Amino acid sequence: MSSSKTPTQNSASGGYPHRHLLGIEGLSQSEIVFLLDEAAEYADLDPHRHGRNALLAGHTVINLFFENSTRTRTSFELAAKRLGADVINMSVAWSSIKKGETLIDTAMTLTAMHPDVLVVRHPDSGAVKLLSEKVDCAVINGGDGAHEHPTQGLLDALTIIRRLGKLEGLKVAVCGDILHSRVARSNIHLLTAMGARVRVIAPPTLMPGRVEELGVEAFTDMREGLAGCDVVMMLRLQTERMQGSYVPSIREYFHFYGLDREKLAHAKPDALVMHPGPMNRGVEIDSELADDIDRSAIREQVEMGVAVRMACLDILTRPLRTGRRR
Amino acid sequence: MSSSKTPTQNSASGGYPHRHLLGIEGLSQSEIVFLLDEAAEYADLDPHRHGRNALLAGHTVINLFFENSTRTRTSFELAAKRLGADVINMSVAWSSIKKGETLIDTAMTLTAMHPDVLVVRHPDSGAVKLLSEKVDCAVINGGDGAHEHPTQGLLDALTIIRRLGKLEGLKVAVCGDILHSRVARSNIHLLTAMGARVRVIAPPTLMPGRVEELGVEAFTDMREGLAGCDVVMMLRLQTERMQGSYVPSIREYFHFYGLDREKLAHAKPDALVMHPGPMNRGVEIDSELADDIDRSAIREQVEMGVAVRMACLDILTRPLRTGRRR
Amino acid sequence: MSSSKTPTQNSASGGYPHRHLLGIEGLSQSEIVFLLDEAAEYADLDPHRHGRNALLAGHTVINLFFENSTRTRTSFELAAKRLGADVINMSVAWSSIKKGETLIDTAMTLTAMHPDVLVVRHPDSGAVKLLSEKVDCAVINGGDGAHEHPTQGLLDALTIIRRLGKLEGLKVAVCGDILHSRVARSNIHLLTAMGARVRVIAPPTLMPGRVEELGVEAFTDMREGLAGCDVVMMLRLQTERMQGSYVPSIREYFHFYGLDREKLAHAKPDALVMHPGPMNRGVEIDSELADDIDRSAIREQVEMGVAVRMACLDILTRPLRTGRRR
Repeated sequence: MSSSKTPTQNSASGGYPHRHLLGIEGLSQSEIVFLLDEAAEYADLDPHRHGRNALLAGHTVINLFFENSTRTRTSFELAAKRLGADVINMSVAWSSIKKGETLIDTAMTLTAMHPDVLVVRHPDSGAVKLLSEKVDCAVINGGDGAHEHPTQGLLDALTIIRRLGKLEGLKVAVCGDILHSRVARSNIHLLTAMGARVRVIAPPTLMPGRVEELGVEAFTDMREGLAGCDVVMMLRLQTERMQGSYVPSIREYFHFYGLDREKLAHAKPDALVMHPGPMNRGVEIDSELADDIDRSAIREQVEMGVAVRMACLDILTRPLRTGRRR
Repeated sequence: MSSSKTPTQNSASGGYPHRHLLGIEGLSQSEIVFLLDEAAEYADLDPHRHGRNALLAGHTVINLFFENSTRTRTSFELAAKRLGADVINMSVAWSSIKKGETLIDTAMTLTAMHPDVLVVRHPDSGAVKLLSEKVDCAVINGGDGAHEHPTQGLLDALTIIRRLGKLEGLKVAVCGDILHSRVARSNIHLLTAMGARVRVIAPPTLMPGRVEELGVEAFTDMREGLAGCDVVMMLRLQTERMQGSYVPSIREYFHFYGLDREKLAHAKPDALVMHPGPMNRGVEIDSELADDIDRSAIREQVEMGVAVRMACLDILTRPLRTGRRR
Repeated sequence: MSSSKTPTQNSASGGYPHRHLLGIEGLSQSEIVFLLDEAAEYADLDPHRHGRNALLAGHTVINLFFENSTRTRTSFELAAKRLGADVINMSVAWSSIKKGETLIDTAMTLTAMHPDVLVVRHPDSGAVKLLSEKVDCAVINGGDGAHEHPTQGLLDALTIIRRLGKLEGLKVAVCGDILHSRVARSNIHLLTAMGARVRVIAPPTLMPGRVEELGVEAFTDMREGLAGCDVVMMLRLQTERMQGSYVPSIREYFHFYGLDREKLAHAKPDALVMHPGPMNRGVEIDSELADDIDRSAIREQVEMGVAVRMACLDILTRPLRTGRRR
């Protein structure tokens, strides 16, 4: 892929010593920098000129999705295929009744088939970690409950770096349904580890308790929270995770927390607008603003997603590939 | 693939100058001839002897289906894999409520992942064209509403040519649910452009208004319409598109419009019987007649489908492949 | 793959002269030995060291599943991809109303696309055989109704051989829902053909009539049936096939027929515990016992599944591959 990826450089930058990628929490700054640097190299390749390479030829990646996600699954599938891997998609309907044991049996079944990487999405926080302890291959967390979505955190960071040149010292507002958002959690861990100043903005009902312990400032007023921000990161309303809790009215939500030009004017003049998708247009974000390619990096986020996932698949399979016969 | 595919020959036959294949309407005769000639070359290859080639190695084809179709999706998937492409299947549940914006967001997401070809099936007429204007890759219409299904038109034409040697001057009857049929529309455009004489036969409730403006003769009586025809092309009853309109009784429909030996006897003695599938046996066509391999080309239609789709994928990616590094 | 797979050896061991693998019933002992020997070679390969080979490059395997089965489909998909084949998954919703004709049309459609192997799972006994008579490629029965599941029989046999060194002379108990189990049927045919002594243990309501004609001994008492057995093979309760018949209460079922340490103590001291999965823990088998890797071979069964399927795909495509151009 690149002549600059030498063991020396890797160790100089800290490398990525873990077997799995389960979350951003607990990663050191040098580990995050390493992941982002590798992803940046993949981002610089033009897929229409370079096509697939054969780095993971003969390797098997299983996408194990206990929750639907066409976008994330497609992004991982594309990343794996661009590296030459064989990809198998498994969608498993999940009912909370069958919990625990079924998850472990699935893990046991899959590990017996000897995949090289398992990408897992699961509606329960912690399920991916539990599964990773039972299998005999690298595991990437593709999103678990309201816990973490580490490749989303990485792709958001890579997008910011490519637009604004750095993370350190930036003022980033993460806005909306903080309570149910794994995207928020991964971003908060990553951005604070990298020296950005993170603010979370949410209605009181969607603000987690003791959120300040994550090292962020909390606001319930959008205009106040956005003041002077370099990046405005909107979140999807996770209504599917709001069982039993307060579900806001759409109209009211947009009025107070939906991003439009007026609210955005409180941020820095060239503040970057982001959304992990899929967007609820007219709910979390004004439709016209979402499509403004000067302000919105939404398309670039998707693009960086493939690069980040290629990098993660590459990095996590390096120990395997050493000495593998072709 | 073939030494005869030289640029000279391509330009001599008109080539295929478009970036997408959205419909047959508007294609010139020489463009249609070019597509059919290329498809014929693929049809002559024995897949059991030649297997896959590597023409599209490193290229990504996304099958984006907003409507279920195991057959068409499988045919495109097989065609792409025989050319060595990576294929990603995306099934997107569609509700007319989420329309418009969701489609464009899907397009934006996909184009950010840099596929080379997008094959799109959609329940709304015009949706594929709309999407093609938003993406940055070649788009093939895999069927949009009651509008067009261009690869079906091409595979039907290729089947006729291989059985009867030509299209020009043939008398072709297209029979059944003309009103809701994209297959009918693509066939009408293609056959009339190639100099065939097309008749449409349908009950008054399933006949589009002003159908003669498409250059066809309209009949409501099967026997009269079939008189002297070289080809009898039956259509599937698209009951799923008959919301609010008259749905015929099955028994009555077969009596008046189902193809059986008695009605077929009004066509030419060796008239070719076709159906795009999946058939409603005993509704649109007599079961025994459908299986008569001397009269029925139904199996060959499916076979030509793979060849046509290989040709379309090949042709639409030629500009991309020029100068691509391997 | 292996220098020992010479034509001479194949013919010496009987080879596998059939075009399809529809069931174990009717296979000779030498044919079974041949299949197991080939599978054993694949089982000895370490997938993390050897990755995929290119034996089936350019070949197409279609997984045609009329019944959901993530595990079996994944196992076949993985096996085919490890051999370099292109794999296409087709899930077809099945309603008994559309029966017969639809099945044959599906067969006709698929054969027109020229796959090399069709793996078929179907809820109706005999449907796979019917389909195999209509298509122009090798067919592997991936499970048909309560009839047969031959690759499961082979993988169970391979697992036993690897744990206990042989099949001949072993006393094997097959326990549970014999009536609805295709796994039981394939195992009974295989084990009796190989000289094992098979006992079936089931409640009277789940015991097929005249089961002794299959060459087995029938028991309705677990402790009595397990006495002196070398292998205890539990079955999944196929509640989905119990329409109109007696469905046992879970608590009562586990009490009388669920495998726990107390009942297992009646078998030989080192008796092997097996289950085809997915397990209903606490119903057919005690959860802690299922996870005891000294007694339970459940994980190894899954592992052998991939090896057996690689061997079957390899063997059934040998006639095709002779003389195929690359």
